[in-house]
Parts: sequence; C-alpha cells; structure tokens
Amino acid sequence: MKKMVTKVADLIHGGDYNPDQWLLYPEILERDAELMREAGCNAMSIGIFAWATLEPEEGKYNFEWLDQVIDRLYAHGVYTILATPSAARPAWMAEKYPEVLRVNSDNRRILFSARHNHCYSSPIYREKVRQMNTALATRYSHHPAVILWHVSNEYGGACYCDLCKENFRNWLKKKYGTLENLNHAWWSYFWSKNFTSWDQINPPMDNGEHSLHGMNLDWKRFTTDMTVDFMEAEIKPLKEANPSLPVTANLMGFYPGLNYFKFKNVCDVISWDNYPAWHEGDDQELACSIAMAHDLMRSIKPSQPFMLMESVTTAVNWKEYAKMKRPGMHELSSLQAVARGSDSIQYFQWRKGRGGSEKFHGAVVGHLGSNQTREFRDVAALGKRMKGLSRLVGSPFEAKAAVIWDTENRWALDDLQGLIQKDKGYMKEALHHYGPLFREGVNVDVIDEESDFTPYQLIAAPMLYMYRAGVAEKLRAFVENGGTLVTTYWSGVVNDTDLCFLGGFPGDGMNQVMGVDVEEIDTLYPQDANSATILPCETTRGMKASYAIEDYTEVAHLNGATALATYDDDFIAGLPAFTVQSFGKGKVYYIAACFEQSFYDDLYRNIIEDLSLKTLDVTLPKGVFLSNRTLEDGSLCHIFQNFNTNEVSVSLPREMECLECGEKITSLTIPAYGTAFLI
Amino acid sequence: MKKMVTKVADLIHGGDYNPDQWLLYPEILERDAELMREAGCNAMSIGIFAWATLEPEEGKYNFEWLDQVIDRLYAHGVYTILATPSAARPAWMAEKYPEVLRVNSDNRRILFSARHNHCYSSPIYREKVRQMNTALATRYSHHPAVILWHVSNEYGGACYCDLCKENFRNWLKKKYGTLENLNHAWWSYFWSKNFTSWDQINPPMDNGEHSLHGMNLDWKRFTTDMTVDFMEAEIKPLKEANPSLPVTANLMGFYPGLNYFKFKNVCDVISWDNYPAWHEGDDQELACSIAMAHDLMRSIKPSQPFMLMESVTTAVNWKEYAKMKRPGMHELSSLQAVARGSDSIQYFQWRKGRGGSEKFHGAVVGHLGSNQTREFRDVAALGKRMKGLSRLVGSPFEAKAAVIWDTENRWALDDLQGLIQKDKGYMKEALHHYGPLFREGVNVDVIDEESDFTPYQLIAAPMLYMYRAGVAEKLRAFVENGGTLVTTYWSGVVNDTDLCFLGGFPGDGMNQVMGVDVEEIDTLYPQDANSATILPCETTRGMKASYAIEDYTEVAHLNGATALATYDDDFIAGLPAFTVQSFGKGKVYYIAACFEQSFYDDLYRNIIEDLSLKTLDVTLPKGVFLSNRTLEDGSLCHIFQNFNTNEVSVSLPREMECLECGEKITSLTIPAYGTAFLI
Amino acid sequence: MKKMVTKVADLIHGGDYNPDQWLLYPEILERDAELMREAGCNAMSIGIFAWATLEPEEGKYNFEWLDQVIDRLYAHGVYTILATPSAARPAWMAEKYPEVLRVNSDNRRILFSARHNHCYSSPIYREKVRQMNTALATRYSHHPAVILWHVSNEYGGACYCDLCKENFRNWLKKKYGTLENLNHAWWSYFWSKNFTSWDQINPPMDNGEHSLHGMNLDWKRFTTDMTVDFMEAEIKPLKEANPSLPVTANLMGFYPGLNYFKFKNVCDVISWDNYPAWHEGDDQELACSIAMAHDLMRSIKPSQPFMLMESVTTAVNWKEYAKMKRPGMHELSSLQAVARGSDSIQYFQWRKGRGGSEKFHGAVVGHLGSNQTREFRDVAALGKRMKGLSRLVGSPFEAKAAVIWDTENRWALDDLQGLIQKDKGYMKEALHHYGPLFREGVNVDVIDEESDFTPYQLIAAPMLYMYRAGVAEKLRAFVENGGTLVTTYWSGVVNDTDLCFLGGFPGDGMNQVMGVDVEEIDTLYPQDANSATILPCETTRGMKASYAIEDYTEVAHLNGATALATYDDDFIAGLPAFTVQSFGKGKVYYIAACFEQSFYDDLYRNIIEDLSLKTLDVTLPKGVFLSNRTLEDGSLCHIFQNFNTNEVSVSLPREMECLECGEKITSLTIPAYGTAFLI
Repeated sequence: MKKMVTKVADLIHGGDYNPDQWLLYPEILERDAELMREAGCNAMSIGIFAWATLEPEEGKYNFEWLDQVIDRLYAHGVYTILATPSAARPAWMAEKYPEVLRVNSDNRRILFSARHNHCYSSPIYREKVRQMNTALATRYSHHPAVILWHVSNEYGGACYCDLCKENFRNWLKKKYGTLENLNHAWWSYFWSKNFTSWDQINPPMDNGEHSLHGMNLDWKRFTTDMTVDFMEAEIKPLKEANPSLPVTANLMGFYPGLNYFKFKNVCDVISWDNYPAWHEGDDQELACSIAMAHDLMRSIKPSQPFMLMESVTTAVNWKEYAKMKRPGMHELSSLQAVARGSDSIQYFQWRKGRGGSEKFHGAVVGHLGSNQTREFRDVAALGKRMKGLSRLVGSPFEAKAAVIWDTENRWALDDLQGLIQKDKGYMKEALHHYGPLFREGVNVDVIDEESDFTPYQLIAAPMLYMYRAGVAEKLRAFVENGGTLVTTYWSGVVNDTDLCFLGGFPGDGMNQVMGVDVEEIDTLYPQDANSATILPCETTRGMKASYAIEDYTEVAHLNGATALATYDDDFIAGLPAFTVQSFGKGKVYYIAACFEQSFYDDLYRNIIEDLSLKTLDVTLPKGVFLSNRTLEDGSLCHIFQNFNTNEVSVSLPREMECLECGEKITSLTIPAYGTAFLI
Repeated sequence: MKKMVTKVADLIHGGDYNPDQWLLYPEILERDAELMREAGCNAMSIGIFAWATLEPEEGKYNFEWLDQVIDRLYAHGVYTILATPSAARPAWMAEKYPEVLRVNSDNRRILFSARHNHCYSSPIYREKVRQMNTALATRYSHHPAVILWHVSNEYGGACYCDLCKENFRNWLKKKYGTLENLNHAWWSYFWSKNFTSWDQINPPMDNGEHSLHGMNLDWKRFTTDMTVDFMEAEIKPLKEANPSLPVTANLMGFYPGLNYFKFKNVCDVISWDNYPAWHEGDDQELACSIAMAHDLMRSIKPSQPFMLMESVTTAVNWKEYAKMKRPGMHELSSLQAVARGSDSIQYFQWRKGRGGSEKFHGAVVGHLGSNQTREFRDVAALGKRMKGLSRLVGSPFEAKAAVIWDTENRWALDDLQGLIQKDKGYMKEALHHYGPLFREGVNVDVIDEESDFTPYQLIAAPMLYMYRAGVAEKLRAFVENGGTLVTTYWSGVVNDTDLCFLGGFPGDGMNQVMGVDVEEIDTLYPQDANSATILPCETTRGMKASYAIEDYTEVAHLNGATALATYDDDFIAGLPAFTVQSFGKGKVYYIAACFEQSFYDDLYRNIIEDLSLKTLDVTLPKGVFLSNRTLEDGSLCHIFQNFNTNEVSVSLPREMECLECGEKITSLTIPAYGTAFLI
Repeated sequence: MKKMVTKVADLIHGGDYNPDQWLLYPEILERDAELMREAGCNAMSIGIFAWATLEPEEGKYNFEWLDQVIDRLYAHGVYTILATPSAARPAWMAEKYPEVLRVNSDNRRILFSARHNHCYSSPIYREKVRQMNTALATRYSHHPAVILWHVSNEYGGACYCDLCKENFRNWLKKKYGTLENLNHAWWSYFWSKNFTSWDQINPPMDNGEHSLHGMNLDWKRFTTDMTVDFMEAEIKPLKEANPSLPVTANLMGFYPGLNYFKFKNVCDVISWDNYPAWHEGDDQELACSIAMAHDLMRSIKPSQPFMLMESVTTAVNWKEYAKMKRPGMHELSSLQAVARGSDSIQYFQWRKGRGGSEKFHGAVVGHLGSNQTREFRDVAALGKRMKGLSRLVGSPFEAKAAVIWDTENRWALDDLQGLIQKDKGYMKEALHHYGPLFREGVNVDVIDEESDFTPYQLIAAPMLYMYRAGVAEKLRAFVENGGTLVTTYWSGVVNDTDLCFLGGFPGDGMNQVMGVDVEEIDTLYPQDANSATILPCETTRGMKASYAIEDYTEVAHLNGATALATYDDDFIAGLPAFTVQSFGKGKVYYIAACFEQSFYDDLYRNIIEDLSLKTLDVTLPKGVFLSNRTLEDGSLCHIFQNFNTNEVSVSLPREMECLECGEKITSLTIPAYGTAFLI
C-alpha cells in the first residue's frame, strides 16, 4: 500500500480555495471553515494564484493572512495542500521585468494578462520563483496542516523568446552534436533547408518553418523538457526545506502540449484536472473516454494511486453550454476517479468568486453563501460517503492489459501531412481497443512507448506510427516472451525524428513479427464504404460474418501470418484485412483497416477469454462498468458503477460483501447512477 | 409638436449626395438637381466624405464646388443637410500626421485606408476637425438651404494608441480614485491581477488581459465617452456659429460598439441607418425586429420624432446576397420608419458611384442615369405620397409600455463566461417580450436602465443580468407605485462592474420585490427539452395547458410569490417556472425559464387587457401591424401596415378617416405591402 | 507540327527527381536509374530544390553530384529537364541577406522557411539567381542529356516589402502618368481617398486600403508583371549560354494569383501541375473541369502542345482525404492530358523522401523501394503504352470554338462587393458553357480577353463583367464578321480599372450588338426559385418547354433582339430571359439569368449543329469524352476516353483505325477507364 499523503487516513475531499480573493470579507473566511466541516471536506488547495497577495511589492512578503487561513482550517479538521503561485505573476513584476512574460509564436511578447504564460527560460522569473518558494517552504513545510505541495497550476504552452530560442539551439546541439546529424535526422535536404549554422534554426514560428516534422517534434520535446526543468527548479527549495513533503503538479489528461510521462520522476504524486461534458451525448461512451484519461494519468506512475485534483460540482462555465450535472451524476462521476485509482476527489473551486471570468464556474459554495443548495448538499453527501471508503486509501489499481497511447506518436500523427488531414483518427482507434477492455471490466493501463511492457499479458498498440528507438525491440521481446500484441494499420512508419523506415512496413523489423508486409494505405472519403468477411476458425469464434470498414484500408500482403478476414470490395477484395501470427511464445494480431466498433468488441472478448483477464466472472449489463483496486491483503475491491438512468441488476458469481456496510449479497442491484464497492 | 427641422414643412425625403465624386462630370451634377425634383426629394446630405475635396492641401480650402451644389439644389427646392467630413481624412493628413490614424487592438497602427478609423484622442486630428468645422460653419451655418448638421458618419470602433491608453487610465483614475477601489470593483484578486500602479493597466488588447470583465466593461464605457467627447468637440464650432441649427449623428440601431443612450444630450435629433434583409426569411418577424430598432433609436429622445438617415432603394451590396426589394416593399419598409416615429425617409445614396466598393449599392439613380428604372420610379412614387403626410411632421410616438434593452447589460452578457457561450440569448428573450406588444398594436418604447421609468404602466425587463446602481430602486419604486413589471431568469446577477451580488438572486433586494429566490440556472443543450404546466387562474386565463421550454431553466423557490406554472420534467419537476407577486400597488411577473413564443403572446394578451394598453379595439390579422402617432390636437393617427403578400381586411371599431384622402371607412382593406393612415 | 523538345522522339514520361536528398544513399541513386528504365521513363526534372546542395556556401559550387546524376540517367536512356533552383534559397543566404525573404501583407518579413517565398524585387536575390543560373547554364546547357529548362517552381504569391512597394509606385507612375489620372481611374474620390503624392499609395496590406478595386486590380497586375520580369531575369543567362534550349515554368491551372497569359512570351513551352481529387464526387464532372484547365493552359500558346509537368501516381498528401486512384484511373487521367494536347506525362515525384512534409505524397517509387507496388506497375504499364503514341508528338489541338475565361475579369469579380458575396459564380457559369462543348466532343480553346478572336466560329463569353479596353470592339468585329457569340448576365459592367460604364449595360456599346438593355440584376437567395418558358422557334428547336433558374435574374429590355425565353415568376414575369440578335454577318445570344445546366446543353447542341462544329458524327455515351489532335498530315486523331466504371460501346460513323494497333473497326468498345486513339 502506498499512501500518497501519510498524514491523512481518509480519501481526500476538498478543493481549490482562494481566500486571497476575500480578505475584505472576514465573515466569509470564518464561515468557510465551518462550511468545509459541514461538507465533509478534509483538505484544501490554497494559494494557487496568490502571488500578488503574498508579495504585494517586490521583496515585501505578506504571509499573515495565509497563516490565519491555514490555522483556521486546521482547527476545523481541514488540511492544506499548499500551492506555489508561479502560474500567475503580479503586475509589478511584469511591469519591472517584461522578460518574465511569454513571447507567442507570432514573435510578440504578451502584455500582463491571464495566467500560465510566463517564460520558462527567464533567469529573473526563475529567481523570483526560487525566492518565493524558499519563503513558502521555510514558513510552511513543517506545518502540521500542510500535507502536499501543489506546484504551479496546469503547466502548459510554450515561449518563443530569444532566451528560449537559444535554449532550443543548445538542446539541439546536445542531442545531435553536429549539423550533419541534424540535417539527416530532419531530412533538411527537402526544399533546400540544410542548416549550415545553428543560428539559422528557429522554433516553428507563425511566419517560419513548419515543413520539417523532425524539427516540429523536437520543439515539442524541448518544450516538455523546459517545463520539467522549470518544475525541478521550483521544487528544489521545497525539498531542501523538507524532503519528505511530497510534491504534485496538476496535469490535464489528454492535453496535447506536453508529454506528461516525462513528469514521472519530478512528481511524487500524479494529480489531474477532469472536466467531462456529462449529459451532452452518450454518457456511457464518455465514461469510457474519461476512464481512459484516468488510466493514462495513473499509468505515469502505475504502482500507486493518483489524485483527482480538480473537478466541478455541477456545471463548468467555459464550455459551449453550461449544463449542470443531473442528480446523482456528481457522486457517480466523482467515484469513477476513485474506481480508477484516485485517492482524492477535489474541486475547482470551494467558493465562487464575485468577479472575473470564473465566477460562474460551479463551486461548493455559491454567491448565495448557502449550505442549502443542491450543489452543497451533493458535495456534503459525497463527503459523508467517502468516510466509509478509507480502506481504499493507498490501494493500487493493477492491470495485466495495457493500451499504448503515446504522446510523441500523437504529435507526429497530428503534424503529418496525409491520411484524413483534419483528424488522423488516433483517439478513435485507441478507443476501439480500450473500449472493449473497459466494458468487460478488465483493468487496463494506458502506457507510452517508454513504459515497461513486461508486466502485461496483453498490449494493444493502435496506430503506432512512430517507433522510437528501442520500441520495436521491446515489442518483439514482449511477443517472444509470450505476450499478445494487437496492432493496426499505419504502424511502424517512421522513426524518432519522423524519417520513414526504408525496406518495408511496419518498419524496424516488425513486419517479421507480424508476418505482414504493407504496401500502401488508402484513405476513404466519408461517403466510401468497405467491409471484410471473417474467416471462421477457433480464433474468430463467435465473430460476425462481416464487419463494416471506414476511414482507412491498408493493402497488405501475408508473409507468414494467417488471414482472419479479407476485404469484400474495391480493388483490394480478397486481400487480408485482419491477420494473426504466432511469434516466439506469443501472438500478434494485425488489423489492417479501421473497423466498426463491434469488430473490436468481438475480438477482444475472445482474447480476454484466452488470456483469462477477467477479475470476476460476471456478465456486465450495458452501462455498468467494473473497476478493481487491490486492497492491502491482496484481495480485490470490485467497484461497479451504473451509468444508466435506471436501476440495474447484476448476478454475482459468488457471495460478496459490501465494503461500506458489510452486507453479504449474491445479486447486486444498483440504482440509477449508483456505485457499489464489493469485496 | 416638436419639429426637428423648422424650415421644412413636409416629411424629409432625400439621401446622401456625393457631388465631390462627380466634379469632372458637370452635366451629371446639373441633371441630378432636376432628377431630385422629379423624385419628390426635398433634402440631401452632402459632404460626408468630402474632406479631400474641401481641403485638397493642408490649409487650402476649396468651397466653390459646394457653394454651387447647395445653391443649385436649393434652386430646385432641395435643402441641404450638411456633413462634417471627419469620418474619412485626406491622404495628405495621414501621411503628415500618422497619429490621426487608429491603432487596432493588435497594437498596430493602420495605414491610410477605409474610413471611420481615426483616433479620437489625437490632438492634431481634433484641431484639424475644429478648423474644418469652423470653416464650414462660418460659410454655411446661416445659408437658407442648410437645415441640419450631419456630424461625421456612423461613429464606431475604438483606438488603442498610447494617447488613448493614457486617456483610459485618466478616466479610470477619475472613476475609481484609488487602485484599491479599482481592484475591488474589477475583482483583480482573481488570478493575481491586483494593480499597484495605473501604468500597469491596458485596454483589452489582443495579446493582453481579457478575463477581468469589469475592465472590459469600463473600456467600452470609456470608448463611448471618448466618442461623445469627440462629437462634442466637433459640434462646438458649429454651435458657436449658429446655435439654432440642429445637429444629428447617424447611429446604427443595435450596433454593439457604443452605448447610444449617452448621445442623448449631444444630439438635437436622433437619426439612424437601417438596412434590413427583406425577403430572406420571415419578413413579418423581421418587421418586428426592425420596429424594435426604430423604437430603440427613438427612445433615446422619446419625446420627439427621429430621422431615418440612411436606407436603401433596393439591394445593399455588402450582405451575403444582394437581394432586391420586391415591388411594394420599398414603400412599405420606408413608411414603417414613419409609423414608428420618423419624420424622414432618406437613402444611401442618391447616385451610384462609378468606382469603389459601394458602386453596386442600391441608389436612386443608377449608372444608366435614367429616371425610368424601377428604383427611381419607386422612390418618386413614395416622394409623391409623402407630400400627403405632412400632418405627421413633428408628431410624437407615445408609449405606455416599455421594454428595457440596455447596452451595458448586453456588453456584460456578451462578455460573460457561461450559459450558452456563443449567444447568451439576450436579443431572443427581448423579442419574446417586444413581439407580443408590437403585434397587438401597442406602442412601445425601448429604453435603457438609465431611462425614466415613471411614464410607463408596463415595463418588461428581460434578462436584466446587470443591475447598475439605482436600477433596483427604480424598479422597486415603479412597482410600488402601481407599475406592472415582467422580468425573467438571469436577472440581477451582477452590479455595475460585473461583481456578483452576494446573498441572493435577483440581487440588490429585488428577490423581495419578485417574491422569488433563485438557486441556480441550468443551460440546456439544443437536444434537451422541458416544459411547464400552467396553473389555471384568473391571471392565466386563456393560456394553454403547457408550454415548451428551451435554453435555460432556473431553479427558483417561492418566497412570497404565487406560482403560475411549474416544470414538467427533469429534477426540477414541480418547481415554479412562472410566478406573480403583488408588491405595493403594482405587480411583478417572474419568468424563470426560456419559453416558446406563444407563452409570451398569451401572457401579454392578458396584461394588455388588464392595463387597457390598446389604442384601438381592433383584432389585427396576422402580418398587419399597427403603430400610432399623436397628432397636434392630441388625437392619434393609426397606421396600419400589411406585411402580407396578399390583400387583407381589418374591421374597424368605429368609422375612421383616411389621413391622406379624407375618405370615411368602417372596414379597412389593405393591399399587399400596403400602408393606411387612419384618424 | 511543333515539337517542344526536338531531341525526344516519344512523348515525355518522367517526373521530379531529387537526388540531392539521397546523396548519403549511393545504392539508392544507382537503383533509381535502373528503375526508371524499367518504368518506361525517358526524362526527369532535376534540381528543383537543390540550391543548398549546389551552393553549400556562398560562392562555393558543388556540381559533381549533379554531373554524375545526369550522366548516369543519360546512360540509362533518361533525359534531364534541368531546374533553376530559385524556388527555395539556402539557409545561409536568408541568414546573410534577409532581404531575399518575402514580406507578407501583414508587413512582417518571414523567417527562413518553406519555399516559393522570395522577394521578386530584391537586387541581391536577383544577383544570386543570376550567378547560379549562369553557372548551371555554362556547365549544362550544351549537355546532350539536357532537353529543357525548368525555371524555378510554381511561381506565385506576392511580396510587400519596401522595395516592392517602390516598384509598385513606379509601375503606377508609368501606367497613369499623373495622380489625376490615377485618382479618376481608381475613383479615389470615394471615401476621400484622393492621392496627392505617390508615396501615399501602398499595396492592399492587411491593415491598409482595400476598398479601391482599381488599386487592388493594379496590384495583382503589378505582381504578375514583377513575376514575369523576375522570370525574364532568370532566363537571360540561360539563353545567353544556349539560345536554342527551350524554357518552361510549371504553372498551376486556375491558380488565382497570376495572370498566366502574360507568360505567353517568356515561356517557350507551357507546362503545368495537375492534381484532381478523383473519386471524391462525380468524376465525369471533374473530368470536364480538368479538361477546361488543360485547355486554359494550352490556350496560352494555342498553336502548340503543352506539357503536364506534375501529376501524382496515386494519392496526394495535402488534400483533406488522401484517397488513392482506383485501378485504371492513373492511365485514364494521365492520358486525358495527352488527349487535350500535352506531349508529356510527368509526376511529382520519382521517389518518396524519407522526411519532410511531402514524404507521403504519391511517387513512382515508395519507401519500400520496390518495383512490385501497384503504383510502380501502373506507371510502368503507362510508360509502355506511351511508346506506341509517338505519332502524337508535336500534334496540335485545334479549336473552332472558344470560351473566354479571363483572369483579370476573375480578379475583378472576386473582389466585387455585391451579388453572391462569397462566390460570384464565375467558374460555375463558365462551366455551363464549356461543359456542353466538351461533352459533345467539340474541341475548345479557353482564351482570355487579349487573345486573338479571329480563329473562332463560336465564342462563349460568360459573365464578362470587365470589358478591358478594346474587348468590346473585338467582340463587335467578331460578330460582324460572322461569328456566333454567346454571352450572359453581368457582362460589360466595368472597364479596365473597375469603373462602371455610364449610359447602359452591357457597356462600351455592346448593348447595341446584343440588342438588349439591362436595367438591374437581382441576386436570388438559395431558397428562391424562378424559371423561364422557351418561345418555340427554329432557334429553340428541341429545347424543353421551361428551364429552372437560380442565383441571378437580370431585368433586361429588348432593344432589337428577339426574346427566346421569358421569365415565369416574380415581378419580372414576361420579361426576356434569353434573346438572340443577328448583327452584321453574325449572331449574339444573350442569357439574362443563371439557368440549370440542361438549358446550356440544349442550346449548344443547336449551335454546334448550326456551325457544324463536330469533328466526327458520333453520339457519345454519357461519360465518354472525345478530344481531337491534328496529326502531321492534317488528319485528326480522335481520342475517346471512358470515364465510366463499366465498359461502353460507341458506334462509329465510318471505319476507323486504332492508332496504336492498326486494327480497323466500325464499332468501338472501351473498357472502364479506357482510352482509344482512332484515326
């Protein structure tokens, strides 16, 4: 059992708290502490945008208000997750040191504004952050109320200032050594771009170079590295003051700007901010996507729980429609995080501000200041229930199956010229694979190319366009050693720097592992259609006679593999659309086209059976999802969640016990939007 | 009777005339004067973009051509509405003094181009305008032909140059006194924006701050104030030369850039430019929107007629489709302005230019130069008819009902983060209320929060999100003194600077006046639906059993009010959706959701009956609209307009007389697109 | 017979070849030459983006690799089309001389990036190009393998730097002489834009003037002239070294940025790049559009064949969907170029690059490097077939009918404020006329206003909005001398500088030629409809009783012409919608509205019959298109292409012979996507 925060016995329940907005309203600050207790909250994230209040003039710190807030909350049983305020700098700093402000890709420095937009290179900004973090750490890192550092807020974006450009060039020098290497890696020969001096290189600016994909990729990698480097600089004074106080940064799920797997070592705990649009479309599909996001975040540090750092009590105010959560959805969606391995449920934010652009974002306490609103009562009810779930604290979510969803691969796909230009379909194909595993109640990790493949029996590698160095070997070894690999069209096309493999696809030798040689890929117009007929055999048992195909069809030739389905139409009729090959002790499925979802459902049902991946022998009704956390004694807590708007029954394979009430049952009835924790 | 222009006995008929484009074509200038007489025109707006011709070199004025034009027209019975030419400066001025050109929100100064884009702060521009206006006023303000000043053209936009920034900061200093006040008013604490020096403040630039809504609002207010200030500077030399020559500026209806109600005192006469897209959709709905625009413009100075300064003879050339007016529509739409209180019908423009981007905009005289075109004949026929309507000159349009449509409230709603992001629905909800009054033939004013509420028996205040200081008191007093108030969801949420009221909505004490406490508002997706069931009683007599709801549903609790309808579906089923409360001598209706139009139609039918708001006891057929102007003897002229494409009959409650022909009738038959003036 | 390239006996088959990308892969360079022979290729375009390799440092040339490539290919029977590399400059040049980089219309100079973006004015760039081209010409212009110069690549775009601005002003001075002339020509009086100094004039920059259409037009004309001037400078050293080596530049069909007819004299051969989106919509309609593009390109130099310089083997990678060509489409679409007068079929590119944004663009050789792919085999099969078509080399495509499609008219229409704003419909109306001629197998030229009209019996002049100086006289003379002119609504509205004609439309006296006076034009909303009834007579024999109308209806009055159809609906019912007038020895059809396609089909069927325009008395099945090239003996080669996905039979009017196999046939059966060459 790995508890994130050793001081807290229960799951953490709380939210962002911005008392610095209310210093002129002391009665509200007093009332907050009482309401927190009433809402069953035990921790608040404080000071996230408080720099202007903490340091109103350069070098003049004001911590008294913060002392009082932390102490007052602690007196009411509420811990503090203390933020470093670097996400928004004070106006005086931007005025005196404009270099702290970011330069956008249009080469213009921003004015003092918004947030999350400082330069990561600026020596002055780093120094000011160091001073602030040192002061905070000195004063609070041994305070009994303080349980965790919340470093900055939602790191993101990039700066294109001269300092950052220079850092980029130095990063490239370190990576490539010589311009010859760089020119080959980026294939700069194309359109006469051969660089003959490092100074000729710029980031991909609005009015600059974009056609060298290796360069674009390196810029994104550099940006991730700079962000991690900045975070390391932020953490240094914190750890110096108290090495044992853990650190987190709130990430943003599938946010495309950063490769979060590079934050693995810099964060003691992974936390993230989750804002789904419930009730807009199919909530069961959305639940699947959100579970995948939880799994992605958790899999950065797969051995331990994560935290849900931000979520909303009801409606967010920045979507197209500010739709509220229906009754029951708050509990259901919040507990989904716990089901997927979170040890916390936290909100943005505790109390709605009076002004500014977030004042209509859902919060525990509204402008009315009342404890009688639906929002408050929902939160308080959940807080009460969470107290009965303390056995889950520190319990890992363990998986034998993994889906590879690799951020660098995504970058390369997004940037690629070809296929369906607007959306290459990476997320769609990934959900084709993740979905069946999720819906069958199989625990899944969502890993990247650099993750350890050895813990898994099954790996799905959809659209793995880019094989970074070593990935092909790892995949080969995984299969040789008995693993089952499911992979698809448009895999193994390029290497780390987006250079195409020569001599056959999937490249880097993987065509041998798959027993398939790919000749070309065709992109279908939305009005096009094809399908494939399944060749009946043991492997395709229970599958339909034929499945529809859209978006992509590869022209592939068998070279050792066995065809399991062949195309029905067009000039590729009869060619393999789906194959299998045994390789070493393992097996590889190759899916050469983009099938309808039921194809993947039926395929994975067989694979799950073959590999005995289920943790419990149950048939899950539609919309009931099963997650499993491993308790301290090694047994599993099976968490059933009903995303239907009606009550549903599940027959259990054995007598089970309710984690919360201890009742023994053999059949489970879950109300609409209900969650059951069974052991 | 308040005549706008004392010299002219008839309604004004004419248009923009740009002889400066035709100085090389003397025969055309000669022909114009003859054609104007033939078209029944009695006034032309001259010199609107003539600066380059009036002052071809700095300080060298050339008025001879203008003398001739004014004299020639006067000799043909055509008065002059003389423009100040500030809307477009000459090239030599932009070249010599670049500061006269505007800086856009991207911080880049424009090049010499287009029009309506000078800096309102520039001392040089103000000086050049002063010199020009002084010269014009000296020469023409006592000319017998000149009846009105047309100051500049369609004021609009904003400048972000350093001079304007400095003026903005000074405006803020004057408004707030201290940065403490400003920081609280703007809630700058949010995201650490506390300003510690005035110089840190910028307008909302493209690459600057946008999240402080109080700041955004103040920038728009400042821009309006600067524009008014510029106009005052323009007028000063005009009034010095002849204080009795009235002044107007042509406004633009619902244009969002300026708060036109601030022009109340600076304009002697309100005039505006109106370009509806007839025949595109439902012309009867469009007629309602356009009537509302006329009413808004008129209500800036509600005691007197306004002018229709620009309209088109047939098609405008800048819409997506340059659709022409069908036969009859020109007369119908032109007389709609008169029906709503205009004393003029004027066009842009008299003659189509040979070149430039407006050369295909409809005009009285086309490139053919003929008086035989449909356009010309339509105009001439209307000119002839207008001569029979002289009794209307100076007659006011008086209303006992008003709809509040407040520009600052609109700004705040548009800027708000939340609800339906793209369009909060203010105009839609306003038309829900305006429509029934318009269609029942009830005269309506369209006023703003600063207007006098005391003349009215009925005020509709849809979506009055922002209660500026004093508005709640005025509304309370209005009801206490016997007024009927109809108001809706999303009212009284914020104060002047967009700070939320604390302690209950609608705020500033208005929840007591309404007898309703609002807990939260839900935004519906387009695919969502709800409805409310009407509780039958005297107040809801004749209403349907149930009405559909879209977009918004508030969760509101009765606190003194009586429910008149309750929600049918969702978790709010049974809660009040529509209430009434007596307060003092008056009554307040609260509509908690966005209903279908027929709900408002049925509700207002009852209210109109209760308050006896009808001027005439007629049942108006669909598409026949009734407006009423008060003649000099206090009697009403009832103006019926038929927006149907077929003839329609109306039975009259008494024998009435045709204003134009004197015929007595008891039943009225109006041809397609016809207009009848009955007394 | 005019052969473009005297050294090559066969049609040219080849493509862009970029060995400079592969210098580190000598085995690939070796293999390329073998594969070219195998693919039936006889010419490659080399060095298009090779500047960085040819001149890796300033003044240090490296030609050895190019020597080897040219020699190796020549040894394998492959000629070289040698490029000048000006389309992309090396990084060192951009670094040392930033002035070579273009300034965009936002007034910002680009960074070193992309391609096709140098300044055409820059003296340094011109000097560097001169040096490079001199070096290339000195070394290669007498090399036996080199058959043609490929100058730069896809010239396009515009530069807005200070040098270009100054050149623009000088160009204007030369054109207009005085500012008075310019001000009148541009109608600068509009919005007070009168220029009083040349320095006040700028190009249409983002933040500058756009409302003067004459200025916008002149800027586009200037840009064309500058591009031609730059190309002339490029060619000078080439011709000095070897005056007899011909020159081409690869154009881009309907690309709107340049008036390609101005390249008539500077190019010895016209060549162009053609990338249709086959299989997306109706391929037969697309074939018609593409034929029109071929005809436009050919008609720049109508007396001789042109070259298809670039096309793709299967899918391009920069469209929304990277759809591959179905089997047979490669041959069909490639031979369409030959059918319309091309003496070459060339591809971009020979081999897919390993990196960069074009690496997934279709190519003869893919990353696999194999000769067994479908792409390679399709190319090789076509190469083989082309060897049997050598009799076509040099054979012209001669037409007695022409459609005027004028680039300057297009510019003016696109820029116009009015009509259907987004798309005035020029291409749509042009295809209305081109389509019937194409589908009936009548050879057509697609000419511009400056072309010679005398070779034709029939000219279609759709939407000829702008009559440049002399055009009306040419059209009048054409008709007087016996020509048949078909023209339409929205013709003859403005002169060269977009000034409206005064005194009647179509202007410049053409209303007399047509016998019609146009009063106004109405733009229909998409939901509007009208139709016209045909008046039966000899001229309208076989036409339907009535045809639907959309988009536009003109109100026109007969003034000598005879009505052939009258409007059915709206206020224009009964007015003429379609007229004819005999004038001199010829005849003019005037079409006053935008009819459905079948109207044009039926009308042209009669005209084709009247003028005996058919080359062969056949009835062409739907989707079978006939083109005709004139062989050396004056006889025609009739080329039938079947754009159906099924086999089709055509009965022939006489015994004919297969050009390829010599077989005599009386009935022709063409397979799906097949092409037959009959003599």
